[in-house]
Amino acid sequence: MKQAIVVRKDLKMGCGKIAGQVAHASLRAYWATNKEDRDNWTYNHNETKIVLKVYSSKDLDEIIWRCEELDIPYSWVFDAGKTQIEPNTLTAVGVGPCSKDDIEEVVGGLKLL
Amino acid sequence: MKQAIVVRKDLKMGCGKIAGQVAHASLRAYWATNKEDRDNWTYNHNETKIVLKVYSSKDLDEIIWRCEELDIPYSWVFDAGKTQIEPNTLTAVGVGPCSKDDIEEVVGGLKLL
Repeated sequence: MKQAIVVRKDLKMGCGKIAGQVAHASLRAYWATNKEDRDNWTYNHNETKIVLKVYSSKDLDEIIWRCEELDIPYSWVFDAGKTQIEPNTLTAVGVGPCSKDDIEEVVGGLKLL
Repeated sequence: MKQAIVVRKDLKMGCGKIAGQVAHASLRAYWATNKEDRDNWTYNHNETKIVLKVYSSKDLDEIIWRCEELDIPYSWVFDAGKTQIEPNTLTAVGVGPCSKDDIEEVVGGLKLL
């Protein structure tokens, strides 16, 4: 099992800002997942995470739609826009923890940040 | 209330690697915190986070010691070292969620990543 977090690289966010968005998406996708999968991920898979990149809001929308279609747990992060970017900007999406096959289905082909 | 995550900048980790470490530290410090404070942070403080930087393992050790002394919840992340850095390297520390005063006490003066 693993969790994937996908973040936009087109927004010119600094690395600290990106890290904050990724942490938000990670915690929220964790809570979107059922307890059995959460615990399995924590205790047997050492909370394995990958951080991937896309270059538009539309790319994140497509990931959300695939998760909806396949009933895979996910989260999204809209930034309040107090620093660096415009208010209510979709910045990141978290997927899972779920099986590696599900991750591949939803974010396969994306590059590591 | 807020959560602080402190990450080492001296390790030459890429931004995606840093984001992963920060997400680990965030989730683990969250679990180190009692339920009342966790829920208060989530529902009333919008999971406010700051990401800060230090330049050595010793700097992280000092934060851990201050948390121990003051009984503030915290977490640490040792990276398995499969990519970019040596195995079992202390990369990040998460503090809280806790009061802004406690955060100030433990990581006051550190700069944003």
